[in-house]
Amino acid sequence: MARKSTKKNAFYAQSGGVTAVINASACGVIETARQHKGVIGKVYAGRNGIIGALTEDLIDTSKESARAIAALRYTPAGAFGSCRYKLKSLEENRAEYERLIEVFEAHNIGYFFYNGGGDSADTCLKVAQMAKKLGYPIQAIHVPKTVDNDLPITDNCPGFGSVAKYIATSVREASFDVASMAKTSTKVFIIEVMGRHAGWIAAAGGLASTEDTPLPVVILFPEVEFNEKKFLAAVDAKVKEFGYCSVVVSEGVRRADGSFLAETGLKDAFGHSQLGGAAPVVADMIQKGLGLKYHWAVADYLQRAARHIASKTDVDQAYAMGKAAVEFAIAGKGGVMPTIERKSDKPYRWKVGEAPLTKVANKEKMMPKGFISRDGFGITPRCRKYLEPLIKGEDYPPFKNGLPQYVRLKNVAVPKKLSTSFEIK
Amino acid sequence: MARKSTKKNAFYAQSGGVTAVINASACGVIETARQHKGVIGKVYAGRNGIIGALTEDLIDTSKESARAIAALRYTPAGAFGSCRYKLKSLEENRAEYERLIEVFEAHNIGYFFYNGGGDSADTCLKVAQMAKKLGYPIQAIHVPKTVDNDLPITDNCPGFGSVAKYIATSVREASFDVASMAKTSTKVFIIEVMGRHAGWIAAAGGLASTEDTPLPVVILFPEVEFNEKKFLAAVDAKVKEFGYCSVVVSEGVRRADGSFLAETGLKDAFGHSQLGGAAPVVADMIQKGLGLKYHWAVADYLQRAARHIASKTDVDQAYAMGKAAVEFAIAGKGGVMPTIERKSDKPYRWKVGEAPLTKVANKEKMMPKGFISRDGFGITPRCRKYLEPLIKGEDYPPFKNGLPQYVRLKNVAVPKKLSTSFEIK
Repeated sequence: MARKSTKKNAFYAQSGGVTAVINASACGVIETARQHKGVIGKVYAGRNGIIGALTEDLIDTSKESARAIAALRYTPAGAFGSCRYKLKSLEENRAEYERLIEVFEAHNIGYFFYNGGGDSADTCLKVAQMAKKLGYPIQAIHVPKTVDNDLPITDNCPGFGSVAKYIATSVREASFDVASMAKTSTKVFIIEVMGRHAGWIAAAGGLASTEDTPLPVVILFPEVEFNEKKFLAAVDAKVKEFGYCSVVVSEGVRRADGSFLAETGLKDAFGHSQLGGAAPVVADMIQKGLGLKYHWAVADYLQRAARHIASKTDVDQAYAMGKAAVEFAIAGKGGVMPTIERKSDKPYRWKVGEAPLTKVANKEKMMPKGFISRDGFGITPRCRKYLEPLIKGEDYPPFKNGLPQYVRLKNVAVPKKLSTSFEIK
Repeated sequence: MARKSTKKNAFYAQSGGVTAVINASACGVIETARQHKGVIGKVYAGRNGIIGALTEDLIDTSKESARAIAALRYTPAGAFGSCRYKLKSLEENRAEYERLIEVFEAHNIGYFFYNGGGDSADTCLKVAQMAKKLGYPIQAIHVPKTVDNDLPITDNCPGFGSVAKYIATSVREASFDVASMAKTSTKVFIIEVMGRHAGWIAAAGGLASTEDTPLPVVILFPEVEFNEKKFLAAVDAKVKEFGYCSVVVSEGVRRADGSFLAETGLKDAFGHSQLGGAAPVVADMIQKGLGLKYHWAVADYLQRAARHIASKTDVDQAYAMGKAAVEFAIAGKGGVMPTIERKSDKPYRWKVGEAPLTKVANKEKMMPKGFISRDGFGITPRCRKYLEPLIKGEDYPPFKNGLPQYVRLKNVAVPKKLSTSFEIK
């Protein structure tokens, strides 16, 4: 059938740590593909990311209702399952790439949409290169996603804005709480946030304090070498001025010797190292060094899963990235990633741009030096100007009986066509 | 002036740990008092709770605009400052009570509204008794508030419903996250919640799983003696069935020897005990006992400050309690507390009731045994029926530039009238 051979199916997969809005990108991909049924056949999703492709474990998204797909826009986490699995280089494991092509060929897949961060962009690029080498025509397009906000070229990354909004909101709320308690009880509140390499998420804590609601916030960035004396002096000064203080500590903060703050150096009876967070370590310092009562929180998954307080800007951009990826595919493009191009700060305007994967893969965008205040414990006006639009707008999910109503897809498997299997190592 | 002597002022203070809705009660008190200016003069708030009364540090709420007072309804924490300060018994420190009466008399205060939990109800009762003894006429009315949900007689306590909604929502969102990651990475997510004596908040984690969204959740209640072997077996079973699991651990969980789980038994180089949370301890057990990858969070203040995800039922009830307290006062009552009386579960209906403080003070309401499932790791249908209405409805605060806009009052001090001072010990 001639028609079948010209109309290719698409493969979509989610990769790495999930976010509050990665499903909004999936929604953008699937809804846009459904609007172009003359060009794109079915959208098959990888069950648990790229592993689903390697093991020929594909999900037929055409079995899902329009309503279920629409609900992905407000459902956090990865609806098809994600994975932490990095394809090796072509030299190290050519068999993996050959297997991918084998599965794609068996299911008539001509479009490869990979939704992830820096590592995934690298995988996506390799798939594009390998397909060319093996003479199999596939258009590989990367859909950006990472709460770490560290992809190059794009102004920001879908997933980050919602974490930033959650952290800024939480720091504001907890600051109000500790302010109420400070007279006779807790004077310092500490929250640990994600960001092992870059302080983007920690910086968002600084947004809690604004001109009309000034709050004392001390931020510990992974970019700034930890100095206990200076840190305690900064907290002490805030407590003396305001009566209380909030501390935002990135999980990636390191001491002068390069060790993470979270490594406590403590051992249990069996000699195992104690796996602590950075927050209790900082809390302990404050208690011992300043004699102040503290409370500490570790946001962990809550920060990236909190779809209930997602940024509307972030949701819109995540959807737009998925949509653009499909439009790029229809326009015959491959080896690219849609990007967010900022046109102006106030009012915030942005448009969809485009970057070649060769310029995206394996490159980390660090926070500019000019974003951290001189003392190393706060954000600069430039940083604020960059961050503020990203948390703008609310986009509440529907609630039922007091709880957010998130969708769970049927995730019907596509019948296998290959007799061969593939072992994931 | 005869009029001045008949029209008494009111004193209002916030006590103990603050909540997302204690200011909604303050709003109810002040707005209702303002509607009865013929009976109640000014509402003076204690700066930092009862300490403000003892030190004659009163706040004149009449200096705040109607708009600012209305904004208290959606502002978390204690707008006038709270305190952790328990009045001693009459025998131990009669001077404290005499000082209170002295301040009240100086400022023509005839109504005493105390917004707090069990300890505060006791203080409120003592003030009522002492005033009678000293021949000073004051109507002392307690306004219930506690995230611990442990006050007797009232069906539930303002503050609890919003924490319950936050925990149920967070457990649902994080469960979606860990479900996405479980194939190749994290299989168990652990969240530590408040509740040192009673498992009400931990129980709310069980609400995350519903008939249309079943989720594997294992709850560790303070009411159930911790048994590591049984706990690991419960987690193992969930992971085998669902591929992942969420664990809700109360900060109050104890081992068979009575020690808190959070006491790690670890010491640092100086021999100081390591102050860890219960969550990392549980995480460590899961890693060592089952070899599963985990993530853990500690919600701490975030859970009780999260006004952005408050329960509408809770906000309405908090306001109603403040309003009822003033109405009781106008009706000539004293030594009482307004309560929430449940009339039906489905549809949920409730009305304002009344309890004498002698039946409220120093009594803790524990969770009924029939609310915890047989295996000790979940909630029963009876518990669900009780909890569900309390998290119902959303009541979002206004947002500006992506952040909730909470009010900060001017908190203008009332000029002092006494030449004497009082030292807080």
